[in-house]
Amino acid sequence: MSDLSLVIGNKNYSSWSLRSWLAMKQFGLEFHEICIPLYTTESVSKISQYSPSGKVPVLLHGSLAIWDSLAICEYLAEEYPHLHWWPKDKSARAIARSISAEMHSGFQTLRQNMPMNCRAKLPGKGMAIGVQKDIDRITTIWQECRQKFGAGGDMLFGKFTIADAMFAPVVLRFVIYDVQLDDIARNYVETILKLPALQEWIKAAETEQEVIAAYEF
Amino acid sequence: MSDLSLVIGNKNYSSWSLRSWLAMKQFGLEFHEICIPLYTTESVSKISQYSPSGKVPVLLHGSLAIWDSLAICEYLAEEYPHLHWWPKDKSARAIARSISAEMHSGFQTLRQNMPMNCRAKLPGKGMAIGVQKDIDRITTIWQECRQKFGAGGDMLFGKFTIADAMFAPVVLRFVIYDVQLDDIARNYVETILKLPALQEWIKAAETEQEVIAAYEF
Repeated sequence: MSDLSLVIGNKNYSSWSLRSWLAMKQFGLEFHEICIPLYTTESVSKISQYSPSGKVPVLLHGSLAIWDSLAICEYLAEEYPHLHWWPKDKSARAIARSISAEMHSGFQTLRQNMPMNCRAKLPGKGMAIGVQKDIDRITTIWQECRQKFGAGGDMLFGKFTIADAMFAPVVLRFVIYDVQLDDIARNYVETILKLPALQEWIKAAETEQEVIAAYEF
Repeated sequence: MSDLSLVIGNKNYSSWSLRSWLAMKQFGLEFHEICIPLYTTESVSKISQYSPSGKVPVLLHGSLAIWDSLAICEYLAEEYPHLHWWPKDKSARAIARSISAEMHSGFQTLRQNMPMNCRAKLPGKGMAIGVQKDIDRITTIWQECRQKFGAGGDMLFGKFTIADAMFAPVVLRFVIYDVQLDDIARNYVETILKLPALQEWIKAAETEQEVIAAYEF
């Protein structure tokens, strides 16, 4: 039995949860899943049982609670080094961490105007001022990573790394909002979308009953 | 001669720059400093010479440009492992990464309403709705880290780590806006404030001539 548990929010909406969950699935870790619907009257008290920050995702490992998608991935990268969560090459690894951190703290305009909503099809919605600039920066990142480091696979750094997990919610946003993309970005979106683990996440999201009004158009 | 260069913004205002700069100083690294004033007509073009994201800080190491304060620190932690940029203990390290990531992506309300402005004294300003909640969460983090992991020094995890660098701009904000604090938080603020490197940063900020209206009350 696995001694890892991941506390996540609604699969339909929780983009931060998706990052850790997808990385753990892609690297073949077994873990228990504790799903807490967000924005209900019980959400805060339920999440607080596990999460010092009051937010999801949280990884539980023995008596240790590790929160925040990026810290969870860094922790697992140290725990399971043979799985190579980051690129092996030093320069590629530095860039993978740079783009992951840029995603982690940035792109607020895109995130606010195009909330993740796996069940929805919202072509043309969300294109507020500044969103295209975020989209352009993301596709530039993808292009540069694919061109410089993408040999040996079809992920940003060839094989799947934490960086791909960090950008997976953006991939879903681009699909949901039918964002116009160049060839490299469209190929990358299709590659990520085909991952069995991501398909499993989307299918589970489609069966969820909860609706969070703030994330719906 | 050092082969490391750090590209930063105005010391008076650039809280992200302070994080990397302070960590590098505290761990005794020699580096060239390239300071680019933000929000001038030349800022964008100057920063773009170094920074793929168009933001500061950026670390230059040989032909490699690493951006984002957290990615820079992770890179240096790998490059100079004997300096122990993160706590040695696995649990402490996991929590240090959790709080660093929480700081990295969170506390927007505090950051927006109490911009870092080293030269200013603004007691009572900035206390908008939600700011106290951010302050409370930060002081809870400090309290828990000091109590659980603080033995062996007066930093969050005893000795100075990346986590202290990540929270250094908040320390300055608490001083600038004269935020009311409990004893543990006040002691921690005084400890960080006394660091010679931080004093060096503040002194340099005081000599800068540029004024960024958006960051002034």
